[in-house]
Amino acid sequence: MASVERRRVLRWRDGAVDAGPDSLAVEEPLEIEVDGISVSTTMRTPGHDIELALGWLVAEGSLASIDDVLEAKECFEHDAEDPEQVRRIVQVTTRGPITVEPRLHATSSACGVCGADLIAMTQRTRHWPLSEDTASFDVAAVLTQPETLLAAQRGFAASGGLHAAGLFTPAGELICLREDVGRHNAVDKVVGWALQERRLPLRGHALQVSGRASAELVHKAVMAGVPLLAAVSAPSTLAVDLARESGLTLVGFLREGSLNVYAGAERLGLAE
Amino acid sequence: MASVERRRVLRWRDGAVDAGPDSLAVEEPLEIEVDGISVSTTMRTPGHDIELALGWLVAEGSLASIDDVLEAKECFEHDAEDPEQVRRIVQVTTRGPITVEPRLHATSSACGVCGADLIAMTQRTRHWPLSEDTASFDVAAVLTQPETLLAAQRGFAASGGLHAAGLFTPAGELICLREDVGRHNAVDKVVGWALQERRLPLRGHALQVSGRASAELVHKAVMAGVPLLAAVSAPSTLAVDLARESGLTLVGFLREGSLNVYAGAERLGLAE
Repeated sequence: MASVERRRVLRWRDGAVDAGPDSLAVEEPLEIEVDGISVSTTMRTPGHDIELALGWLVAEGSLASIDDVLEAKECFEHDAEDPEQVRRIVQVTTRGPITVEPRLHATSSACGVCGADLIAMTQRTRHWPLSEDTASFDVAAVLTQPETLLAAQRGFAASGGLHAAGLFTPAGELICLREDVGRHNAVDKVVGWALQERRLPLRGHALQVSGRASAELVHKAVMAGVPLLAAVSAPSTLAVDLARESGLTLVGFLREGSLNVYAGAERLGLAE
Repeated sequence: MASVERRRVLRWRDGAVDAGPDSLAVEEPLEIEVDGISVSTTMRTPGHDIELALGWLVAEGSLASIDDVLEAKECFEHDAEDPEQVRRIVQVTTRGPITVEPRLHATSSACGVCGADLIAMTQRTRHWPLSEDTASFDVAAVLTQPETLLAAQRGFAASGGLHAAGLFTPAGELICLREDVGRHNAVDKVVGWALQERRLPLRGHALQVSGRASAELVHKAVMAGVPLLAAVSAPSTLAVDLARESGLTLVGFLREGSLNVYAGAERLGLAE
């Protein structure tokens, strides 16, 4: 299944109408099953679905090593009434029983949480404290990340509708790029890739995302043990608070040769 | 609680570092309780929380009239260990037992769905078929919507991190603007306002959103009975497919005096 598909569009420009095909980002549901139990359905762009499922489980605190995974496979279920309709499922079989209780999400049924609860939950479930990561980054290298990401984002050029997450070395070298209609899915795909490549925790790396930085993205970065998260646009208050409590370096408004540092400025050699 | 708060930031520009306060969009969890049962926790920007809860319930197909609501109130629970930490809950009491099964969301546990299931679900749960809405819109008026929205978006100017949803008349007059870190929350707030104002279904109105159009936003527009949804940026494939099946007019890439029409072009007087 492609990540970009065409739909017919009417384009209105200065009173003139022109009809033709337009390339759009594909959005389709993916179900994640762990040890036979359905734990999540996410709206995502097809591609790297196993990485998406594994990375999501890392963020949930359920997985920290690929050794805990016996098997991860994609399944397709054809609809009985309409065989053209396909349900897509990633089935993950783990070595031991693992607990999956989605918490840091738009419509989880986590009861009565407040910002402090979320921050405490991240500290409790993370496997690798970032305070132990003494990596340093060069502002000049970090400044090149958005452009490198955009140049590598072939899907974005086609549809204008795909978010990207990229994993960078401190020298500014892109080592993994993933795209999705959802920023959080793009990050999950990168982290799932790293789990499969036995690169977790992602010590000494930088994670670059298009758009804004929410608390959910900061949480995912902390859970993957990546010490620097950079966003092209604004962070939220909770993203900043969670980054500070977790020892994550959080960069925002990274564009046009300048950046803002909201937490962990020491890794960039900047005095706090 | 404010929708924008300050955090300390280091700004790096051309090698010079300057420290000071930065205004950021507030992101905090809100729990929604219906008839004593916790049905959702959403990460949102404080403000218009009751509207958010009511609008979310309209999108879930659980509410169609304010007459079905006996009471909707905001509650604050102080944390026993840290009284400064407050859990925020909107408690909705309905006239009769209503069913709430979150489905069209990032991490609902809806099992084995595919795109066609989502489209079928929207058709099944909507109260007001859009095919009955013969409203027409003027391209010239629609083109002014993003600028009107941005001008009215005071929060955006302060933080650069708030999405907006605005309800417009066919003449391009803005009658309700709501902001949030989450686009879907901003739409829920507008729809919740309309429910309270007894304006549902939103026949003859246009809903304008900042950023992109996902299937979730199209679903919310259909459930509120609004015949036109316009986004500043790209729609996804499922957003287009759902709009077409639902009879919704979907406009994308509405910027710089031009627009794309992906569905329902007849309401804009454009031939398909």
